[in-house]
Amino acid sequence: MSSRKRNAIVAQSGGPSPVINASLLGVIDGCGDFSEHIGSLYAAWHGVEGILREELIDMSIQPRRELELLRTTTAAGAIGTCRYKLKEDQNEDFTRIIDVMQAHDFGYFFYIGGNDSMDTANKVSNLAQARGIDLVAVGVPKTIDNDLGDPEFHLIDHTPGYGSAARYWASIVQNVNEENRGMSTSESVAVLQAMGRRAGFIPAAARLADPGREMPLQLYLTEGSHTLESLAENVNRALVRSGRCIVVVSEGFNVGSLGEVHDAFGHIEYGASRTTVAQVVLNHLNSVGLKSRGYASGQVPGVLQRSASIFASVVDIEEAYQVGRKAVEIGVHDGSGWMATILRAPGAEYRALYDKVPLAAVAASERTLPSAWLSSDGLDVTDDFVRYASPLIAGGWPPIPIEGGLQRFAQLNTVRIEPKLGEYIPLKYRP
Amino acid sequence: MSSRKRNAIVAQSGGPSPVINASLLGVIDGCGDFSEHIGSLYAAWHGVEGILREELIDMSIQPRRELELLRTTTAAGAIGTCRYKLKEDQNEDFTRIIDVMQAHDFGYFFYIGGNDSMDTANKVSNLAQARGIDLVAVGVPKTIDNDLGDPEFHLIDHTPGYGSAARYWASIVQNVNEENRGMSTSESVAVLQAMGRRAGFIPAAARLADPGREMPLQLYLTEGSHTLESLAENVNRALVRSGRCIVVVSEGFNVGSLGEVHDAFGHIEYGASRTTVAQVVLNHLNSVGLKSRGYASGQVPGVLQRSASIFASVVDIEEAYQVGRKAVEIGVHDGSGWMATILRAPGAEYRALYDKVPLAAVAASERTLPSAWLSSDGLDVTDDFVRYASPLIAGGWPPIPIEGGLQRFAQLNTVRIEPKLGEYIPLKYRP
Repeated sequence: MSSRKRNAIVAQSGGPSPVINASLLGVIDGCGDFSEHIGSLYAAWHGVEGILREELIDMSIQPRRELELLRTTTAAGAIGTCRYKLKEDQNEDFTRIIDVMQAHDFGYFFYIGGNDSMDTANKVSNLAQARGIDLVAVGVPKTIDNDLGDPEFHLIDHTPGYGSAARYWASIVQNVNEENRGMSTSESVAVLQAMGRRAGFIPAAARLADPGREMPLQLYLTEGSHTLESLAENVNRALVRSGRCIVVVSEGFNVGSLGEVHDAFGHIEYGASRTTVAQVVLNHLNSVGLKSRGYASGQVPGVLQRSASIFASVVDIEEAYQVGRKAVEIGVHDGSGWMATILRAPGAEYRALYDKVPLAAVAASERTLPSAWLSSDGLDVTDDFVRYASPLIAGGWPPIPIEGGLQRFAQLNTVRIEPKLGEYIPLKYRP
Repeated sequence: MSSRKRNAIVAQSGGPSPVINASLLGVIDGCGDFSEHIGSLYAAWHGVEGILREELIDMSIQPRRELELLRTTTAAGAIGTCRYKLKEDQNEDFTRIIDVMQAHDFGYFFYIGGNDSMDTANKVSNLAQARGIDLVAVGVPKTIDNDLGDPEFHLIDHTPGYGSAARYWASIVQNVNEENRGMSTSESVAVLQAMGRRAGFIPAAARLADPGREMPLQLYLTEGSHTLESLAENVNRALVRSGRCIVVVSEGFNVGSLGEVHDAFGHIEYGASRTTVAQVVLNHLNSVGLKSRGYASGQVPGVLQRSASIFASVVDIEEAYQVGRKAVEIGVHDGSGWMATILRAPGAEYRALYDKVPLAAVAASERTLPSAWLSSDGLDVTDDFVRYASPLIAGGWPPIPIEGGLQRFAQLNTVRIEPKLGEYIPLKYRP
């Protein structure tokens, strides 16, 4: 615990979620909880890029009403996020981060992000320690993919953001079922492409729409072993049986080359590739021929599934808030090198517990859907998955205020404070 | 006005909307209003196909609670719809329709649909009259495209369903703006593909998200004159200015061949084609190169924009209900050959009026966005459009009940009544 009052900085990294701003509010309120230890809180504009460029926003000047609205303001437009990858050998960038921290007397660094971001937070924490600098770095977990953590769910039960992505898919599949049921005589197959890269937690959540398995719904996760050919056979079997079929396919389902584009972390950017899995699937279905009337049609919600605020889970909103607040408590009480985490209390009733795990344990971790949760035909998930994920989407619609027919989102004052250091171009952006 | 009590039949046709079931409820309640004239109401399962096959559902056996839920139950899963095209020379189909009407003593036929459906209703009305059969056919307008009617908006101000599609786009663009603002350092351009075929009313509604024109938002309607090349130039200008850009492109925007697939009405089925406009646009953008960091990514909501119940406009729900109810009143008071319509009351305050127009006047009509509502740079719509469309998305979130984290939609008893005639295979489905 730091003996004198220090300032704090919060930053976001990676793709957004509908509840990332709730974690931001949690960090803000957490700093308020410990005002005897923490002075002013600043936000970095666009994550670590904002730290490197010394583009900082003063959170103390924001009206409380706007901060409260962060709870139901989707995605990362409030303070921005980035996909800037800090590599081991980029000493100049790391040194610059430490310089900015020292220039503004930042004693606390709260980093909201996924596995890559926890790796960055860990490196910053280690570097500060190695240089004898008093900097507490604490991670706040965030990823709709739910792929941060261990396959046994001991480090983290689920990541904030996942419950909202799950609720998006549960709701959307309910809607598409009404659509497909009504239109089946001319559009018998609806193909929907889900995010999640190599982890099937997101497409798996489509099952939550229909835990009783009454819909003709098939899930194609990357963890399964189906091919384009077996997919078409499965769909045609469903068409013979039901006259219609809903296909949810993971963006990482292997259909051969998509003309992939990669982001700074080396991950495939499916949304920017030359074609989509959904398109390949529906073209294949329409060309081999459907055993029903009508066609297969494709839907690629893309970023809508991580930014449609009204599908945010109220459970997820609250947990994202609490885990942000917890991170500050950890920073003050336990010091550097931790990530705040969400665990599940034992017992039949769902309840979240907040705890901490070492950043080193989760940094660059990656988990996929446990194989025990895949059904034997590879087209579904088991009831164990449904029991795991259902509580995460419980509750009603989130209370997003409407003004003049439009959603009222938080509007922060993003004017940057006066820099104290000279201009700096992040290594990646040098000519 | 029929002298004795007759039964009634209701059917749906064409693509669904989030409020088509509200019109169905309007017809149900309208029949209740005139119980001295109308006996039982039946619904055809999957539109005119259900009439041809004599697949009929008894609406009088449905619990009132389930009927009430139709108001907020999206799409056409309740009684089904179809894209069956009745052609002038299909006398056998037309005769069968008349036979089914007579067998069940249907004196009233309410047909919920778009321009093609009004054409069908008109033909059935004329045929009955020509054969001296007492059958009242009345149309209930429905299309998210808003392309049914005259370009002067005298026949119909807007179609039920359009307000909800407009609210979908206003809300989604608000969400994507938060997403794009937050992610602009790595995903600077978000391309979104909107429905509407050759009419730009749906993509135009994206402007409702930002009537003050603060977002870097560009609209590409089929009514505009931009090309793939000028689109890329416009986007790059926005990137130089704002570092990010949101592109809403109509599915009918001309980018060359998409490997189009056609439906029974001869319209392009964009969702089933070999590629999408959004994909062509983003591939072009990423290949010519962006004047910003990051990539362009694509989103194709497809049927989600006509089936996401929570984006239904409460104004639209109420109007869809009232216009269905009005259709019954017209049938009883004015007889056959009309479509119920929605007009706008004069004055500054928005108010809908319900009236009637001859089916012949709207049958197979088609309107596009008036050229006066396109901005001079072809990238936007004017304030006149905003004034026209804004009232249609007013109000809060629709009251969709949630049970166990899931939307509770109407569950009708769709068991078919005992047929009175022999089996019949619709002409189109004969080998």
